[in-house]
Amino acid sequence: MSHLTLVDERTLLQSDPLRFGVGARITVAVMSDRFADVILGALAAVDVSGLTLETGDVSTFVGGAEDDLLRYLTDLSTAISESGEHASISVLLSRGCPGEAACALPGGAGPRAIETPEGRDTGWYATAEWALYPLADDVAAGVEPDHMRDIYAAIDLAKSNGTFRGSAHFVTRLEGDLGRILETAVAGWTLVGRSVQHVTSHLTISVNSPSHANV
Amino acid sequence: MSHLTLVDERTLLQSDPLRFGVGARITVAVMSDRFADVILGALAAVDVSGLTLETGDVSTFVGGAEDDLLRYLTDLSTAISESGEHASISVLLSRGCPGEAACALPGGAGPRAIETPEGRDTGWYATAEWALYPLADDVAAGVEPDHMRDIYAAIDLAKSNGTFRGSAHFVTRLEGDLGRILETAVAGWTLVGRSVQHVTSHLTISVNSPSHANV
Repeated sequence: MSHLTLVDERTLLQSDPLRFGVGARITVAVMSDRFADVILGALAAVDVSGLTLETGDVSTFVGGAEDDLLRYLTDLSTAISESGEHASISVLLSRGCPGEAACALPGGAGPRAIETPEGRDTGWYATAEWALYPLADDVAAGVEPDHMRDIYAAIDLAKSNGTFRGSAHFVTRLEGDLGRILETAVAGWTLVGRSVQHVTSHLTISVNSPSHANV
Repeated sequence: MSHLTLVDERTLLQSDPLRFGVGARITVAVMSDRFADVILGALAAVDVSGLTLETGDVSTFVGGAEDDLLRYLTDLSTAISESGEHASISVLLSRGCPGEAACALPGGAGPRAIETPEGRDTGWYATAEWALYPLADDVAAGVEPDHMRDIYAAIDLAKSNGTFRGSAHFVTRLEGDLGRILETAVAGWTLVGRSVQHVTSHLTISVNSPSHANV
């Protein structure tokens, strides 16, 4: 393969969100007898433009560009919050590895650099726990990810938009507007993705919690 | 620091589960109006010997040795299943990094090799999605983790105990006895942990799902 062909192939992989494996898996658990109505109602009400969806019994897969994903996550979580029911929303974000355990992308596909998507205020208070994983697929291509630097940059971002509340075992605690919490997770994920091909992030959000009554 | 002192320090870190950061965060979401009673009842009924617990509004942190963690996860998930209510149980497993984003362990602490804990049959059917992340902290110490090999070994284990059902975007699909699903996740996590210091794993389990009615 010539150098030119290799560069073309990399550009193609990086520019197509679905080929680059940009997507999320979302599990919505509504703590109410009317859980099915609330979940199905929210899923049906949300704009899915630009996205590929597959619904399963454990989670819903959503594939597409990062800004569309952030819009979808914000709209869906807001619709769930509007039900007034206590709910737990778990989100797995992934980019740079379309497959499951084994990456279907060549290790040298390189990182995908994009503008960090902006979130919006939803008016709904939430608390969350967030983990961010730069995976080392680039090591084979001679690029050693500096994941400490990347993660500190992501935490700085959470501090600047006001959602950072501190560190706990294995996770970072986020609190504040639901839309800003999602913004933080998506921004951290894409920020680290500027230097690392394969980055995943897990976010568990609590909305309408009885524990939030005094906030 | 002499070579002997370094070896002693590494052995000490590796042999103490809490200093090595072995633990889990568990989010139990019961889809019923009586969610609080079911969750609090299950948490109160389960044996916590050998474990350190901290309950929060997003998840419960449980620290301790891997076999105690597997016993706790199995007992807790079984107690939730026995309520008859549909529930989503999310588990984050972590070892080799006691802190949050930034590891508090020195990169050269090395991997912690243990006997893979055995699970048990619970009689409860469940479905789950599983992700396993070998993180590359050892790269700095000159040890390059072969995470493809490690992950394939973990998937072979899921096949041998009958819980493997296939690959999906970003996750491996597991189905079968709840106790064997948890065994798979804990075994894969510790198996990869034989060669990689910092390994995390995320498991989302669905129990008593209306979608499972025909199984």
